[in-house]
Amino acid sequence: MARRKQSRPPAVIADRLKALRSRMKAAKIGAHLVTRPMDYFYLTGFTGEDSAVLFTAREVHVITDGRFDVSMSKECPWAIKRLRKGLLIPEIAAVTKELGIRSLAIQTDGMNVQEHKELTKLARPVKLRSAPPMVGAMRTLKDRTELAAMNKAIRVAEDAFRATCASIRVGQTELELAARIEFEMKQRGSSAPSFPTIVAEGLNAALPHAHPGRRKVRKGSAILFDWGARLGMYCSDLTRMVFVDSIPRRLGEVYEIVLEAQERAIRAIKPGVRMCDVDKIARDHIAAAGYGGQFNHGLGHGLGLDVHEPPSLSWRSKEKLVEGMVVTVEPGVYIAGLGGVRIEDDVLVTAKGRRVLSRLGKSLDGAVI
Amino acid sequence: MARRKQSRPPAVIADRLKALRSRMKAAKIGAHLVTRPMDYFYLTGFTGEDSAVLFTAREVHVITDGRFDVSMSKECPWAIKRLRKGLLIPEIAAVTKELGIRSLAIQTDGMNVQEHKELTKLARPVKLRSAPPMVGAMRTLKDRTELAAMNKAIRVAEDAFRATCASIRVGQTELELAARIEFEMKQRGSSAPSFPTIVAEGLNAALPHAHPGRRKVRKGSAILFDWGARLGMYCSDLTRMVFVDSIPRRLGEVYEIVLEAQERAIRAIKPGVRMCDVDKIARDHIAAAGYGGQFNHGLGHGLGLDVHEPPSLSWRSKEKLVEGMVVTVEPGVYIAGLGGVRIEDDVLVTAKGRRVLSRLGKSLDGAVI
Repeated sequence: MARRKQSRPPAVIADRLKALRSRMKAAKIGAHLVTRPMDYFYLTGFTGEDSAVLFTAREVHVITDGRFDVSMSKECPWAIKRLRKGLLIPEIAAVTKELGIRSLAIQTDGMNVQEHKELTKLARPVKLRSAPPMVGAMRTLKDRTELAAMNKAIRVAEDAFRATCASIRVGQTELELAARIEFEMKQRGSSAPSFPTIVAEGLNAALPHAHPGRRKVRKGSAILFDWGARLGMYCSDLTRMVFVDSIPRRLGEVYEIVLEAQERAIRAIKPGVRMCDVDKIARDHIAAAGYGGQFNHGLGHGLGLDVHEPPSLSWRSKEKLVEGMVVTVEPGVYIAGLGGVRIEDDVLVTAKGRRVLSRLGKSLDGAVI
Repeated sequence: MARRKQSRPPAVIADRLKALRSRMKAAKIGAHLVTRPMDYFYLTGFTGEDSAVLFTAREVHVITDGRFDVSMSKECPWAIKRLRKGLLIPEIAAVTKELGIRSLAIQTDGMNVQEHKELTKLARPVKLRSAPPMVGAMRTLKDRTELAAMNKAIRVAEDAFRATCASIRVGQTELELAARIEFEMKQRGSSAPSFPTIVAEGLNAALPHAHPGRRKVRKGSAILFDWGARLGMYCSDLTRMVFVDSIPRRLGEVYEIVLEAQERAIRAIKPGVRMCDVDKIARDHIAAAGYGGQFNHGLGHGLGLDVHEPPSLSWRSKEKLVEGMVVTVEPGVYIAGLGGVRIEDDVLVTAKGRRVLSRLGKSLDGAVI
């Protein structure tokens, strides 16, 4: 049963809907089914899970269930509400048929093979086709509302880090430090960490994706923090090193190499530069210092509603930077049996260059507590 | 480049591999590609992301990248390591061809339409086929190792709840309470909350999936906590109400109705009983009390490596309970403008009945702090 829409969408949503419909028109798409939750949030403000949103030239149908009835009325009262009683795919099929849609463009990266098979069968005679990545492409360029949200998510992550650093004591475990920084973020309004916080002491930092455990802070510890806050749906993502009391000699040298690589890469960021060329600047510096084999991941990634989203700031991508993109820049060097260093900031591509959105200091001396 | 395996898998993994291969044989599957991370963790112990694991009658190939090199060597040194330099799908195609596989059974719920299209093209002449849900089916029945892990995840969630309750003060916000309980879980070894913690005060509890915000604890508050810990990869999932100082009359009545519904449903749990029949017992009790329209979700769901996994303890499922399943039982009543009540425990189906794994009290009087 469809209930009629009650109002108009707010301006920022109206702009995005207009942009989507213009892309739909260009791709000759009359009806687009959006099933990736962050994509339909971007287009409608709706935060429900297990849902889907159908966009036509004039209407927006939110297909959800009773759990999200009230939140939908708050988040997008202007959209048409479809409260399913049964499962999602059959309801999508029913709505599609009811609207007389003949061809439905789906998100090929937002529907698994099983759902696709089922929908193809149930929606007959509606034909499914693959939509080009329209919403994903829109999302790579952040508007003012998004940048405001991202700045808040970054500030909260930074404040939480400062509070955590002030509380670090010899004998604490990685897990306790991770618990503390996540607590500090949530206290400040974060709905969740952007990803499970990495706190890696000593040798553990040699794993780029270390899990915090029972290793303890000691005098002379080098501790890698990689953390971020999700706030108002947007993510921040930062990495800093903390040295307790003193700096292990070789890690200090590696730190300066990684920092120089990061700063060179950041300075190279501006519209029109290829992703792989930015990656190369950091990678060449690290390789020249003799650690080429120890930097075993891409330089960075897009950041927004997802903590990893396009573009990929990597040696594999010939894509060019565009004004409005926000990317992480996070070179690292990992040495088994010794430890690791990574430094990460969140960077906005501006009309003429870049603006580093994160503000935490990163001098080697400043990293000692 | 393939590196040879170094040792044998531990017994629990060997058992699961044997069970998988017996299912593969029955389904005439020679090579099975597992792409759902919790599924390949279950079968190998490997925790890496953006990876895939290929199972043949004799071999296990883990296709991953440099970030997870070291963790793979720790978690499954007995498997064959394939460190990709490029993207995942082309590497899967390359391995498949190299092994001379002719037909590759994929997980239709673990691969999106785009990946499927790409793999179909790149793997040629290898043919892709749909595997029946073998690993998902195995995972519904928990073995001793899993139950030990789940019990730990439940204990940590319970201890964190008790510590949080002891610290609740008038004036605290929902967000502060959510931050506290997540902190207490992580301090005790939880890698992450099983899902973003719900702390919903007063009217906010009328939303089954409320987000904690700036609402404050006051005298007379009814507060709903829905939380869980992920620990050793396994999830717990609990819901309790807390009444501050006194119990609002109508919510107290609703509490007793929901509690009785939950206890009746739990008592009905034993092997051979249909999911829908257990759901009906709780639903009928709530409906008879006049709140049928206010219980707008299923009774519960399977719990394990995922916080929501099969089976679905819902009116839609004719499937029967089997010894070894672990399900949540969580009826709720939500009244707009008043608030809501939900009570949730984690329940193991035993040979002759059930064992409630969670141990927090749930008498109405005991819920007052």
